[in-house]
Amino acid sequence: MDNLPKCGANYVPLTPLTFLTRASNSYANRTSIIYANIRFTWRENHERCRRLASSLKSLNIVKNDVVSVLAPNVPALLEMHFAVPMAGAVLNAINTRLDAKNVALILKHSEAKIFFIDYEYIDKAKKAIEILMSDFQMPIPLVVVIDDLDSPAGIRLGELEYEQLPKGVVYSHRGAFLSTSSLILGWEMGTEPVYLWSLSMFHCNGWTFTWGIAARGGTNICIRNTTAQEIYSNIALHKVTHMCAAPIVLSIILEAKPHEQRRITTPVQVLVGGAPPPAPLLEKIERVGFRVVHAYGLTEATGPALICEFQANWNKLPREEQARLKARQGLGILTLADVDVKEFKNMESVPRDGKTAGEICLRGSSIMKGYLKNEKANSEVFKNGWFFTGDMGVIHPDGYLEIKDRSKDVIISGGENISSVEVESAILKHPYVVEASVVAMPHPRWGESPCAFVILRKDSNLKESDVIAHCRKNLPGFMVPKKVQFVEELPKTGTGK
Amino acid sequence: MDNLPKCGANYVPLTPLTFLTRASNSYANRTSIIYANIRFTWRENHERCRRLASSLKSLNIVKNDVVSVLAPNVPALLEMHFAVPMAGAVLNAINTRLDAKNVALILKHSEAKIFFIDYEYIDKAKKAIEILMSDFQMPIPLVVVIDDLDSPAGIRLGELEYEQLPKGVVYSHRGAFLSTSSLILGWEMGTEPVYLWSLSMFHCNGWTFTWGIAARGGTNICIRNTTAQEIYSNIALHKVTHMCAAPIVLSIILEAKPHEQRRITTPVQVLVGGAPPPAPLLEKIERVGFRVVHAYGLTEATGPALICEFQANWNKLPREEQARLKARQGLGILTLADVDVKEFKNMESVPRDGKTAGEICLRGSSIMKGYLKNEKANSEVFKNGWFFTGDMGVIHPDGYLEIKDRSKDVIISGGENISSVEVESAILKHPYVVEASVVAMPHPRWGESPCAFVILRKDSNLKESDVIAHCRKNLPGFMVPKKVQFVEELPKTGTGK
Repeated sequence: MDNLPKCGANYVPLTPLTFLTRASNSYANRTSIIYANIRFTWRENHERCRRLASSLKSLNIVKNDVVSVLAPNVPALLEMHFAVPMAGAVLNAINTRLDAKNVALILKHSEAKIFFIDYEYIDKAKKAIEILMSDFQMPIPLVVVIDDLDSPAGIRLGELEYEQLPKGVVYSHRGAFLSTSSLILGWEMGTEPVYLWSLSMFHCNGWTFTWGIAARGGTNICIRNTTAQEIYSNIALHKVTHMCAAPIVLSIILEAKPHEQRRITTPVQVLVGGAPPPAPLLEKIERVGFRVVHAYGLTEATGPALICEFQANWNKLPREEQARLKARQGLGILTLADVDVKEFKNMESVPRDGKTAGEICLRGSSIMKGYLKNEKANSEVFKNGWFFTGDMGVIHPDGYLEIKDRSKDVIISGGENISSVEVESAILKHPYVVEASVVAMPHPRWGESPCAFVILRKDSNLKESDVIAHCRKNLPGFMVPKKVQFVEELPKTGTGK
Repeated sequence: MDNLPKCGANYVPLTPLTFLTRASNSYANRTSIIYANIRFTWRENHERCRRLASSLKSLNIVKNDVVSVLAPNVPALLEMHFAVPMAGAVLNAINTRLDAKNVALILKHSEAKIFFIDYEYIDKAKKAIEILMSDFQMPIPLVVVIDDLDSPAGIRLGELEYEQLPKGVVYSHRGAFLSTSSLILGWEMGTEPVYLWSLSMFHCNGWTFTWGIAARGGTNICIRNTTAQEIYSNIALHKVTHMCAAPIVLSIILEAKPHEQRRITTPVQVLVGGAPPPAPLLEKIERVGFRVVHAYGLTEATGPALICEFQANWNKLPREEQARLKARQGLGILTLADVDVKEFKNMESVPRDGKTAGEICLRGSSIMKGYLKNEKANSEVFKNGWFFTGDMGVIHPDGYLEIKDRSKDVIISGGENISSVEVESAILKHPYVVEASVVAMPHPRWGESPCAFVILRKDSNLKESDVIAHCRKNLPGFMVPKKVQFVEELPKTGTGK
């Protein structure tokens, strides 16, 4: 058994790049990308990616160099998901909602060699580069501006965010390949999907569908802005079959004005993540013509790690009961080697009783290679051959996992992750603030929003609006507390936390 | 980038065994196997496999030991697809249609340590063991008889065979994992399939669905005999959604007697392989309620390597045209790194014109590790990082491959592969035969059947029936020529072939 040949014919490293070459061969003349009036076939798409990869090499990009990009869901960002790894480099897609300072931090941390900037974000990028030079004394990367292929469409709304900045999560080709395969399988996406880019590609590579649509020979409908009008008009125009979204996007769709709405004639499959979809929202959106599958993931898992597979026998249950079952996080995706919920005290698996909580742990080749330049964080999350998600959950008797709480101090607002520690630090910069504690507050639209409890200096007469104004100067908009409550004392644990 | 941790959490070898542990966790109480009145859940299935693996170890089975089995599609054979690799051993599922001598040859070649025998095949196995001892002077393996869990149901008909004995094709866990994932994807098999075992599991591990049904949390309907009655009654009883078959099985279904037929209320998806399905057969079977997808593969590729993905725009074409398109071999499966058709003379890719023929070549981790103890054969099929299938084909302008001829001397009869060289050797053993040449002859039922051209000694008065009777003694029944033609001379190439 040991004398068998291991060669290029029977052992090939796994990479999602094969999805593109295969699409170019198998689906050559099928439309790969639509963006307003622009269209490319899979063959053209492949050719454009090859040229970009070759240009990167001629710009002295070598293996493991980082290529950063600040752009909305335009064709260039999709093409970079193939061209950058094709050149052996590492793609670093930055959240366009971050402020200049956070963008600068990411450029510094990743040591980006090239920085691609969509024309819409030139001002923000310029500021980030200034900070990079002045505050961090770092050399500036080579800057490439991305021209719009058509015309910009308006104001951006509603995004999804699994990332907890400024940790840099590094993926492998193998992980991306496996995760992509699993999500097509888990969502049961057939061939020739027409996929609407309502989810930002910089969120975990659009939960791997940047590669998945190539694997399925589908068509990518790129849009610059995730508005109700854009969503409805593109569904009607291109007969969209699939899209991904955070619950906030479902709300946006439901709040569409009458003139923005179109009748959905064929059901649109929606993979929902970022936060569990509330049952009433699920019921309403399904009535309009969307079919929802709920997934749970995190950047560290190369996107969704659990998917709430629908069971035929749920059809017999009342709608509310179905919605409750579908709002659970579900089952491990196929390419994960294992999923478990472990108790804190002894690291043993919890019983499948839907009650006993523990930390959700994952194992498999789609888990990140690690945080970039952060050994401490790596040693915290990788323990005994498991990746610890920081999320608390239970296992139901039917094997489906459900999150009960997050053990990390993260607030999820409109699908974006907010670190409460980061907001607290910003508030504490105010000279009249003595202590601050930021928690998640339920919010009818955003799911959660940050709420700050603040202890002031005795001599201060700050008002709520002053603290909020201070935060606006120091934080990206979505991180600013919606409410500030002044208190005399903050409850603490025995160790002072 | 190089300092990132590689550990059990983020790098796990790929194996289809994870499909079973996942099924046991995720689909614990769902029915995994039905065989007549016997039923197991995925949890019980997992537990039974673990016990069998542990028994194998206690019988001194160690890594890379070969475990052979001669059995029809009973639960034991399905369970062995997990339990044997779980014990680190190599599963060797033998075609039950082979005669005792061929079974003995396989036991010798694989150096089987244990031989599992279904009670129905005890006589054949006994003979094989006698030959192993007397003719080959080999130690006999430990024999384990498999009792039937229910009662046998009748006469076996129609099987599929990609194997070209006595070459022993060795698979890796990685290849089995990737191939299984690809076939679920290519066939678009959703969750909770109800899968009818009309295809023999010993044919390429049932084209990987021995593992694929676990990956999908489906139910395996095991049957002992592939008759029209068994097929129809199981479809009606268990609401079968999927099955695999050679074209001959489709013929068997269409020839069912009125009392054997049942109305198909929900379409049954059929993956057809072994030979291209003739267009009239496709039309007829689809009218009864079956939906056919055609796949092409070979044992060396761990089952199907190409799949004829249906395109929505074919729906607009006339039925005959659709059938013609669907009878092509199709596109490379997703986990292959590459597929090509290369010209003999220069090894360059043929143009995509549907006319220029070349040899079909494959590359990817689902290709076999190699032929067991056969360096010559390995060096013939693995060349320049490609696996050469021996099949001649063309590429159509839409990227779909179609086979035009086989460059290997193989006759495919009723889905079973017959080596013309092996039949010729058997004929040549007759003292009055001087030369023999065996070719494929079109056959209305079996697709092809062997036809022998024979030159006799001048002093002989042999008749056709004598040669056929001689073959019956020396070959398994399905290999015996249906026609023998006596000739004066055989056409030869310049080198005497």
